[in-house]
Amino acid sequence: MRRVISSSLARCAGTVGVTSALLRLPQCRFQSQAPPGVPQQAPSIARADHEHGQDAEREFEPPKKPTEVPKLVRINTNDKGITNVQLARAPVNSLSLELLQELNQWMLWLGSNEETKAVVISSAIPTVFSAGIDLSEVHNPKPERISVFWQSFQEMWLIFNSFPKPIIAAINGNSPAGGCIIAMGCDYRVMARGPKDNANNSRLYRIGLNESKLGLVAPPWTMPAYAYLMGSRQAERMLQLGETPVADDAQKLGLIDEVTPDDERTVEVAHKQAERFLSVPQQSRWMARDMMRREYLQMLASDEERNYDTEFFTQFVQSPEVQKNLESYLQRLKNRSRK
Amino acid sequence: MRRVISSSLARCAGTVGVTSALLRLPQCRFQSQAPPGVPQQAPSIARADHEHGQDAEREFEPPKKPTEVPKLVRINTNDKGITNVQLARAPVNSLSLELLQELNQWMLWLGSNEETKAVVISSAIPTVFSAGIDLSEVHNPKPERISVFWQSFQEMWLIFNSFPKPIIAAINGNSPAGGCIIAMGCDYRVMARGPKDNANNSRLYRIGLNESKLGLVAPPWTMPAYAYLMGSRQAERMLQLGETPVADDAQKLGLIDEVTPDDERTVEVAHKQAERFLSVPQQSRWMARDMMRREYLQMLASDEERNYDTEFFTQFVQSPEVQKNLESYLQRLKNRSRK
Amino acid sequence: MRRVISSSLARCAGTVGVTSALLRLPQCRFQSQAPPGVPQQAPSIARADHEHGQDAEREFEPPKKPTEVPKLVRINTNDKGITNVQLARAPVNSLSLELLQELNQWMLWLGSNEETKAVVISSAIPTVFSAGIDLSEVHNPKPERISVFWQSFQEMWLIFNSFPKPIIAAINGNSPAGGCIIAMGCDYRVMARGPKDNANNSRLYRIGLNESKLGLVAPPWTMPAYAYLMGSRQAERMLQLGETPVADDAQKLGLIDEVTPDDERTVEVAHKQAERFLSVPQQSRWMARDMMRREYLQMLASDEERNYDTEFFTQFVQSPEVQKNLESYLQRLKNRSRK
Repeated sequence: MRRVISSSLARCAGTVGVTSALLRLPQCRFQSQAPPGVPQQAPSIARADHEHGQDAEREFEPPKKPTEVPKLVRINTNDKGITNVQLARAPVNSLSLELLQELNQWMLWLGSNEETKAVVISSAIPTVFSAGIDLSEVHNPKPERISVFWQSFQEMWLIFNSFPKPIIAAINGNSPAGGCIIAMGCDYRVMARGPKDNANNSRLYRIGLNESKLGLVAPPWTMPAYAYLMGSRQAERMLQLGETPVADDAQKLGLIDEVTPDDERTVEVAHKQAERFLSVPQQSRWMARDMMRREYLQMLASDEERNYDTEFFTQFVQSPEVQKNLESYLQRLKNRSRK
Repeated sequence: MRRVISSSLARCAGTVGVTSALLRLPQCRFQSQAPPGVPQQAPSIARADHEHGQDAEREFEPPKKPTEVPKLVRINTNDKGITNVQLARAPVNSLSLELLQELNQWMLWLGSNEETKAVVISSAIPTVFSAGIDLSEVHNPKPERISVFWQSFQEMWLIFNSFPKPIIAAINGNSPAGGCIIAMGCDYRVMARGPKDNANNSRLYRIGLNESKLGLVAPPWTMPAYAYLMGSRQAERMLQLGETPVADDAQKLGLIDEVTPDDERTVEVAHKQAERFLSVPQQSRWMARDMMRREYLQMLASDEERNYDTEFFTQFVQSPEVQKNLESYLQRLKNRSRK
Repeated sequence: MRRVISSSLARCAGTVGVTSALLRLPQCRFQSQAPPGVPQQAPSIARADHEHGQDAEREFEPPKKPTEVPKLVRINTNDKGITNVQLARAPVNSLSLELLQELNQWMLWLGSNEETKAVVISSAIPTVFSAGIDLSEVHNPKPERISVFWQSFQEMWLIFNSFPKPIIAAINGNSPAGGCIIAMGCDYRVMARGPKDNANNSRLYRIGLNESKLGLVAPPWTMPAYAYLMGSRQAERMLQLGETPVADDAQKLGLIDEVTPDDERTVEVAHKQAERFLSVPQQSRWMARDMMRREYLQMLASDEERNYDTEFFTQFVQSPEVQKNLESYLQRLKNRSRK
């Protein structure tokens, strides 16, 4: 029995993505989609995986439908099987531990739920897709919570990047830092341009990894993915300066794929793209994506690497200098909102 | 004696490309071009090679001129030493085991034959460069033949990518899948736009790795090369959707380098480019190319990696789901040709 | 005592860049900038470093201000803390051992000297930024000197690429080969277009790794950095053919970032960019840069890899064929200057 399970796991691990077997197998719950062959970027990678891959021996449990009604996300599936996942944590969809956990649970379920053929992710809150990680998670953090928070953030990244169905970002608002990271995990990014009544364009929506402006640094595992989208040099300059281009510039850079004039149109266009991504044999589509992204996912491929990354982040973020930067940033935000 | 040979092999291996010593040394037969130094991307790579490099100890045999008259390719060398290799397997230059073997044998010979200074590869058949691998090789395949077939395909890739002389693709017709792969192995790609009497542009020539549309997947070792040409993100989207852009779009993407209005002009322009690539010291040109491509060739650098890839492909292609996809594709082709 | 030092070294090594601890710690003298956390691209890289990282145990000595007045470079710091480093070795700033050593010593000092906030590097000589390595270093070289020369060239590369403060290239003249390599190590490249009285544009400034035209080859460790800037395929073609585009074309390719019409304006614009790079928290800016470049610096990360590279280069350059190419190139230069 155990052998049967672990061979089906191996099959699954090879297909849903290296990450599956390694991240305590969350994606392996996507088993129903497992293609018949075992794609693999290169034996050398396979071997490396294998070394860390004791996880693959763990018992397999398909993901269950979350029992609780979603509070911070909204889930709606249309008659074509396209599920719209809306982030709905007022006021700005900042990523708290609770939001990430809820998002991860539902995404795992949607990945294996047969009714869902593709996912469109958007915001239920006007003018903002997501403001990024909730700064209250990192300002004077509690040591245990900060670790679990970061692991949930890593898990979101791995789930999105190895998701077995088309997943389209409908970026209907500002999308800095963590908001940009969610979008980067998708297959295609449609972004709204922002308000028209916009004399000096100051309210056009913006996207980008702007962590350096706050005295933080983008997660190391997002950097090769940023370069993947825009080329290494553009990515480096944008990371150094914390640039957040408007939608039209982001499209030229390659950070997003398509600009829509209206916020409302964004989800609609994303649905059209989901249909396009569904028009080819899905196993082939998914294998191509999986093989292409495998290299940059290696940075979080094993328990060891994820633990190392968590330790680095928690130490870094608790340093006096980073805390001082956060303090002064939060103070500026407070002053601005008072005006 | 053995030591002399193996040191000349080592010299050769370092220069013709890592791949040479590893692919049972076919490119090492290109020995006459071996530069005096031993370029190397990095010692860490060198060490990795060394581990698998028992092959380097095998006896060296320079490639001999194929004894048989070529049947599926045509070979013509002009007075400037530029050899035109034409694919000539009617009706659509689909890549059968026999075509690949003939092509590989002649390319090995041309690589070391002093008369040839550069190669232009084109099609002898109107409107098609190559339709890609012959589907009869993969539809209900015989187990032994499919392995040898795949090894020949790998070998073609390695020969092209480590070819010691300029090699220019004159893409004078449609070039999907395997046709695109041949072009990707060259130094420069000139492509004809396609028929002018073209009301709706439906007959413009197209190029691209469209395997996913057939329910297949592009060879894993072509994916980093696809990203090498166009950037990772563009490559990923094109692989997922199996896109085959027309020549002008392919040029914008970076998949090809130059567009010609006439099929006839294509080979002519490719000759001009071959002369340009011959205008610099050839040892330096070749070393630069070799060092740049070494990383993506690592995926086929050892017997072990090539065997793994062959095993994966043969298992994958023989799976019921892939066979079903092929079946229905071939049926559609048959129905279309009846009309 | 020793433990304190080596832990502060470890801290430093993790922040100034992997290279620091490995290149006999020159950048570790940049200790004053060490951020509180220990960024790291991935544990797997960290482990690899650790294996070669005995250097990290060596005693730490902060860099001292060079005692001699600079002869081949000029150093001026303005009231905003931006230091202009001018290359000043007539007639064409060719890179001799002495110039590289002086440049390296001063850059190390500037990296840790608190007065300096950023560096702008330019030429004190009209119409040329740097002509590249001094060919008299490689033509009939003395074996010991050529090794030390090459190590200084490697060290320049590592110092620039792990420099803890913004470093902007003001390319106020031609910049082939080694000149281009200096510019590539910076954070931003501003380039003058060249003389206006220019009927046929023949005197517009040019930049690029043109080593292959001389029968040489660009240092292997610059190749991934060239691809980092322009994408792999563009980099490959330019390396094969030794292309040196004019400033406007170089900008389109991504090799430089900005073009100025006047030579004089170039340094001015570079100062403005230095201020922009100083406008974000510096620790975050630096960590992003460091993590992004770590991969391509791996090629020179250990004593072993640097020694291998030095050996390869010295053997290659002393080969009869390379010496013959250099001979004929120098002869052509001589003939041209006689006219």
